[in-house]
Amino acid sequence: MRVQIEYPDWVIQQIDWERCYRAPEERMRFVIGLARENVLHRTGGPFGAAVFESQTGRLVSVGVNLVVSQQNAMLHAEIVALMMAQHRLRSFTLNTDPKIQYELVTSCEPCAMCLGAIFASKVRRVVWGASREDAIKIGFDEGPVFPESYEYLKARGIEFIGNICCAEARAVLDLYIQHGGIIYV
Amino acid sequence: MRVQIEYPDWVIQQIDWERCYRAPEERMRFVIGLARENVLHRTGGPFGAAVFESQTGRLVSVGVNLVVSQQNAMLHAEIVALMMAQHRLRSFTLNTDPKIQYELVTSCEPCAMCLGAIFASKVRRVVWGASREDAIKIGFDEGPVFPESYEYLKARGIEFIGNICCAEARAVLDLYIQHGGIIYV
Repeated sequence: MRVQIEYPDWVIQQIDWERCYRAPEERMRFVIGLARENVLHRTGGPFGAAVFESQTGRLVSVGVNLVVSQQNAMLHAEIVALMMAQHRLRSFTLNTDPKIQYELVTSCEPCAMCLGAIFASKVRRVVWGASREDAIKIGFDEGPVFPESYEYLKARGIEFIGNICCAEARAVLDLYIQHGGIIYV
Repeated sequence: MRVQIEYPDWVIQQIDWERCYRAPEERMRFVIGLARENVLHRTGGPFGAAVFESQTGRLVSVGVNLVVSQQNAMLHAEIVALMMAQHRLRSFTLNTDPKIQYELVTSCEPCAMCLGAIFASKVRRVVWGASREDAIKIGFDEGPVFPESYEYLKARGIEFIGNICCAEARAVLDLYIQHGGIIYV
């Protein structure tokens, strides 16, 4: 048995791996674009994510939700982006080089599993668009996340920034419902 | 880019996929054995897991910790077992057939990420050996898990049973330290 995690073809065709995304909004619009394309191509849920080098904005990896298309409940956009980043960097931690800080930018506030993966991967900053409440509103269950969860992670050096371009991020959640997307949790 | 998740060779050679494991202790000793072999073969952390059909004890999938060997912080034993189970069953949910209940048996209490993955995968019962405190004692950080996390998951129909064969499970954690194993979180 072997599980293969691969990007849909449109991701490969669309990504410019050399580009740097400097402003937080530019990074966010990029992952919201991934989420939107994922809905339009019907390759998964309405979520996109990417790992960047914080200082330079260099793109390290991207992720889109692949739960339904790859029959794997763990393949949230954040998990895909973090796994791909570690694969590319050949490291099980994103905190090896003190000079480079990595950040995860995601179109929606992470669920309980993804918050745990953020901690395990040692990414240092997390930026999201739509909120947990926005995801719940369209029927997703984000799992056991509490204010104490954030306190725990912040105490271990992870920075969280929410509500960047949130109206644009929410619009992709609505688009998914309009397209009859499956609510898989 | 493509992430491949594969069992170490010794796993393939060792598993009898036709065998049923009827008693809870038999299931637990099997996953503790996986954890021990993973330490002895130096293929990862001291953790093993498996998905069984609860009623029959039929083995669906196994998992061992592959964080260091596959350079992927998300590859805890539970995540590997759940991904492999969904791959084998070709389903993103382990709750499709009302007649079959799946359970995850793991040699150690799940971390925050794995609890989230348990919720996402819709496995209905979780059984563990060593406790969260045992893992913390040897240096692992289990992430943001609180009593409310379990309340949240129980309210959604997931059953938890801890401390099965816990002395045997703890012995594998100690073995890992004796072997100079890496504490990767």
